[in-house]
Amino acid sequence: MNQSITLLSRPSGKPEISNFKFERESMPVANEGEALLKTRFVSVDPYMRGRMNLSESYIPPFEIDEPIESGIVAEVISSANPAFVAGDFVSGILKWKEYQTSDGKELVKVDANKAPLSAYLGILGMTGLTAYLGLIKIGMPKYGETLVVSGAAGAVGSIVGQIGKILGCKVIGIVGTDEKATLLTQKHGFDDALNYRTNVNLRASIYDMCPEGVDIYFDNVGGEISDAVMYNLNRFARVPLCGAISLYNAPEAGTGPRFEMMMVLKSILVQGFIYHNFSDHIPEALTKLEAWLAAGKMSYTETIIDGFQNLPSAFIDLFEGRNEGKMVVKI
Amino acid sequence: MNQSITLLSRPSGKPEISNFKFERESMPVANEGEALLKTRFVSVDPYMRGRMNLSESYIPPFEIDEPIESGIVAEVISSANPAFVAGDFVSGILKWKEYQTSDGKELVKVDANKAPLSAYLGILGMTGLTAYLGLIKIGMPKYGETLVVSGAAGAVGSIVGQIGKILGCKVIGIVGTDEKATLLTQKHGFDDALNYRTNVNLRASIYDMCPEGVDIYFDNVGGEISDAVMYNLNRFARVPLCGAISLYNAPEAGTGPRFEMMMVLKSILVQGFIYHNFSDHIPEALTKLEAWLAAGKMSYTETIIDGFQNLPSAFIDLFEGRNEGKMVVKI
Repeated sequence: MNQSITLLSRPSGKPEISNFKFERESMPVANEGEALLKTRFVSVDPYMRGRMNLSESYIPPFEIDEPIESGIVAEVISSANPAFVAGDFVSGILKWKEYQTSDGKELVKVDANKAPLSAYLGILGMTGLTAYLGLIKIGMPKYGETLVVSGAAGAVGSIVGQIGKILGCKVIGIVGTDEKATLLTQKHGFDDALNYRTNVNLRASIYDMCPEGVDIYFDNVGGEISDAVMYNLNRFARVPLCGAISLYNAPEAGTGPRFEMMMVLKSILVQGFIYHNFSDHIPEALTKLEAWLAAGKMSYTETIIDGFQNLPSAFIDLFEGRNEGKMVVKI
Repeated sequence: MNQSITLLSRPSGKPEISNFKFERESMPVANEGEALLKTRFVSVDPYMRGRMNLSESYIPPFEIDEPIESGIVAEVISSANPAFVAGDFVSGILKWKEYQTSDGKELVKVDANKAPLSAYLGILGMTGLTAYLGLIKIGMPKYGETLVVSGAAGAVGSIVGQIGKILGCKVIGIVGTDEKATLLTQKHGFDDALNYRTNVNLRASIYDMCPEGVDIYFDNVGGEISDAVMYNLNRFARVPLCGAISLYNAPEAGTGPRFEMMMVLKSILVQGFIYHNFSDHIPEALTKLEAWLAAGKMSYTETIIDGFQNLPSAFIDLFEGRNEGKMVVKI
């Protein structure tokens, strides 16, 4: 028997286990041109929360009663497609199923000898590309500048900060626990990190840590944490907006300070993006990330959860900040 | 005797006549290397409101008891600087004085035969450069796209819309009176214009006028008018933030809807700017503007107020929207 996880209902606010449904189904068979895949690692990502709504986005909403999809590394079990042989590993946006078939068109082969399979969902996958392309193409870091990263112990944030350090920036991370702060400064080379839960005046704390002001704010969270950084931006600051995890579960976007006036006075740029906007630069990004990783200039942190049955709870835990670095589920 | 206008006190909220002081002083004399200038046309601009505050900006605040400064076209009365002769006309940021001397370093000569003197404060000056550079370099208009301009009957807005039309965009202006709406559609070739004072649901009205969505929003006003446009932005929309006249007089920036989430989902860019950020492109901009003007592809509207004594009230009237097109004071 095969197993899949479908969207039973759209969450209002925070997603719950009851929004997901486990279904049993018969084992799929690879037809001519297809490969049979066994899921090995599944990525859970905050942006997926957006797909659970029926709102306009860069990617269609999940359908009710249809399987959830996300980044997956799978093993080819058998193949009726000449491009794949049994034992190959592939990555792509696939369904939350233990087994599935694919025509292979959207899959890329990954090399289990070059990096652990899970890395292709993280630093060598969408996560690393998002960090690199957002920081480089929008943030345009220059040597000696100050970079603040929110959600800094998350999958993308922890990579952004390390790239900032490689490029000679002063890097400050904003996180939600002291353990995460320690992880960033001890393991990932951040200059400093701030726990937003224990800092009663985040704006002033950032000012104290960055008396020279903030040149780049790589934003993964939105909301009040972002406000505190925005007030500290320098003239010509750049703000790549990668995500807004603090707002994903809000039924309404809510209100916040108006920054238009400040943005005019200081010529500030704020740009929402997904990595795919810079698809021409993906090869360049992967080359750099692989080289930095191989040279020991970067490291990555993963939170690996075991078991297909834990996929929904792993996803939900993202919004509680229960992950350090990239959250993946090992099947 | 000479006359000058100084800043007597910093306004809180809307500027008032009592914030300005008229002073009499002796006639200046041009020393070696200087020219004696007689002020002919004075530009009043919304951004000057920012200089009346003591806040951080791209340009230092006006000092109390010191003359106000703005864009001025002046006539050279006498010159002890070999670069100028009596009868020359020059433009630059100069003091609100009937007569003043200058070393000429920041002045550019203007040609009274090529365009009316006042045009060098408008379409062939900072106003035109702001419109051109903000629209082209940040807005990146493409043929067939939809451009919405706020403050559209103002100095910058009326030029932005016309450039949009030349480049093949659909152009909608947002204005504060029906007369201004007519001016834009009849004289300046806008496809349509909306009066925000009489439209009870601006967001829905923009949706009706732009069913294909908004690709570029050139923002001169900020605040709730901008919110109504923001909700109608397309994926990959660009928002050059030129000014925020609705917010200049607010003691606090106030609050508004959070757009971070939407900006991520739609990959939207919002960028504050002043024309000088693109100073490398000023020659290109002036060449284009002069050519379009000479070819009759653009026209401009001016509100010309007479008399040095009316400078403060002309400036204040900007915030009541009493101008159509560029507001200048003829001395």
